[in-house]
Amino acid sequence: MTLLQHTLDAIHPADPEVYARALERHDTLTKPPGSLGRLEPLGAQLAAIYRTPTPLITGKAIAVFAADHDIADEGVSAYPQAVTAQMVHNFLRGGAAINALAGVAGAELLVVDVGVEADIPDHPRLLDRKVRPGARNFLHERALTLDEAIAAVEAGIDAATRQLAGSANLLAAGDMGIANTTPTTAITAAITGKPVEELTGPGTGITERQRRHKADLIARALERHHPDPTDPLDVLTAVGGLDIAAITGYYLASAANQVPAILDGPITTAAGLLATQLAPNVRHYLIASHSSSEPAHRTQLEALGLEPLLDLELRLGEASGAALALPLVEAAARVLSDMRTFEEADVSEVAGRSRRA
Amino acid sequence: MTLLQHTLDAIHPADPEVYARALERHDTLTKPPGSLGRLEPLGAQLAAIYRTPTPLITGKAIAVFAADHDIADEGVSAYPQAVTAQMVHNFLRGGAAINALAGVAGAELLVVDVGVEADIPDHPRLLDRKVRPGARNFLHERALTLDEAIAAVEAGIDAATRQLAGSANLLAAGDMGIANTTPTTAITAAITGKPVEELTGPGTGITERQRRHKADLIARALERHHPDPTDPLDVLTAVGGLDIAAITGYYLASAANQVPAILDGPITTAAGLLATQLAPNVRHYLIASHSSSEPAHRTQLEALGLEPLLDLELRLGEASGAALALPLVEAAARVLSDMRTFEEADVSEVAGRSRRA
Repeated sequence: MTLLQHTLDAIHPADPEVYARALERHDTLTKPPGSLGRLEPLGAQLAAIYRTPTPLITGKAIAVFAADHDIADEGVSAYPQAVTAQMVHNFLRGGAAINALAGVAGAELLVVDVGVEADIPDHPRLLDRKVRPGARNFLHERALTLDEAIAAVEAGIDAATRQLAGSANLLAAGDMGIANTTPTTAITAAITGKPVEELTGPGTGITERQRRHKADLIARALERHHPDPTDPLDVLTAVGGLDIAAITGYYLASAANQVPAILDGPITTAAGLLATQLAPNVRHYLIASHSSSEPAHRTQLEALGLEPLLDLELRLGEASGAALALPLVEAAARVLSDMRTFEEADVSEVAGRSRRA
Repeated sequence: MTLLQHTLDAIHPADPEVYARALERHDTLTKPPGSLGRLEPLGAQLAAIYRTPTPLITGKAIAVFAADHDIADEGVSAYPQAVTAQMVHNFLRGGAAINALAGVAGAELLVVDVGVEADIPDHPRLLDRKVRPGARNFLHERALTLDEAIAAVEAGIDAATRQLAGSANLLAAGDMGIANTTPTTAITAAITGKPVEELTGPGTGITERQRRHKADLIARALERHHPDPTDPLDVLTAVGGLDIAAITGYYLASAANQVPAILDGPITTAAGLLATQLAPNVRHYLIASHSSSEPAHRTQLEALGLEPLLDLELRLGEASGAALALPLVEAAARVLSDMRTFEEADVSEVAGRSRRA
């Protein structure tokens, strides 16, 4: 059996009974019922994932998946393609936003090369799982072969498995790949059926003329390959990318290992859509960190039925939004684990009110 | 000269030149310009406060100010007044929400008794600055004398000064006082002129009938004392409370010491309004953490011209929202301090674009 099939077989729903028990526990803790707002259902989600009403985050891990996209040749990004490799070096030397943000969150950081078009020298923070140097230009041919897509998905599974072998039990993925909002928008349009024109945004900052060109090119590619919206591997091979494929595998592995994974922006959330198509129960393990200013993101989150925790107008990627949400997720677990009940703390409860309706 | 006057005299504006330099620095860092969204102006605010474009958070401190309110006798809260003291014990023993959340944020926690109606035994985490056991029932008489109000404000100044004598250079205040959304709503109505009925919410969870009773009682108290909306000490003595007065002093001291202070919910934000009335430059030092579900909060934040970082439907107090925002504030500082510039990291910049317009 392949690693992918083995991982899919290991994915089970989170535990709805523990979810309910965690919400009940919340109403016995020394605070007015419901007063911690969205931290309460988030805590219950963590409880359901970890199968305990007192969830404990033992360690946090971030993986940034880097890959190139030859669709960049079509002038869809504000940056030259060489920036992908340059930013990988920057991640390894600690100079990027995600280094600062992972530091604040107390999370370990792994950089995974699944398809950068340059050789990256060995580094303790680098996992070399390069499948091929960049996805093909999907305006002219399919982006990936099936074997390549599966190899990239399995690279993501491998990355998660390595991180979970340490102390981490909370995962977050990020992306680095010049032009990768283009495959992301194509995947989102293919799966949700929403118009490409509505979903196409400025990415890291192209002009309106470039944006229209990008939308037109995505529409033409979808017409050419007409991927089956119900077949995630068909979508991935037609208009996807190696970073997105690997992140899909990372989310599959988080669910298979019964740990939560925090989504970042639209690139990771496209992977979230693909992962939940491959195994619908993955949905229980995903947490939406933030709402990106890229238009496809809102559509993706709605398709997943997820409400983001933050809205800080981020549009960076690299797991930056996921890193910023890590302390909120940790907080949701800690209140359930650390707080005393009214009885334990000898605090008077609200008189004569039923708790959660 | 009194401690209050001395503190007011030490409050100066944040540095607008450093604010501009920090924004310029943001555009040289290895990310698309503006892609860190609201973290960028937040970082610039921190830079302007600390007077350096590379701000560094050396330590984080939270103070929870506890006091009773005899207006509780009028049945405006879902909880008995004894809960104030019980929760202080809970804070000191580590069983409350703020203990868990301060732990996640890596912040030290100080509990300040400025007016609890019970003796609280000594504890290393407790600062005893009790002015009197509870503010008076302002339906019948003024809540505080001028001397009491000033003593409470100075207790807050003292608490901030003690915390800043350690490694902390980022402060957050919280409140604990059964019934304290009632003085908070009265203060907010007095200062903003908004109708009491619109501003009065369910607090920690009273019924609609109780809420109408609470609004009616606040309107009657304001009619009786008619505090001068331009005189914060008149408002505080008429319909205020010892916790709110102390938090006002805490914010004055943060500004006088040129460190930022993170607001929590409506009780602390009422203190923010009072502090900015006493010294308008305090506004530069305040950061809004979250938007509470209590209606007065939105009005207060609008009056201060602040946009909250989080909207998690919290309605707890105790500095819970401020504690959740601490890592975001730290992140805003860290990206400015830790990230490399395009030049330092040898990363290609976006071609031919002017940066921030």
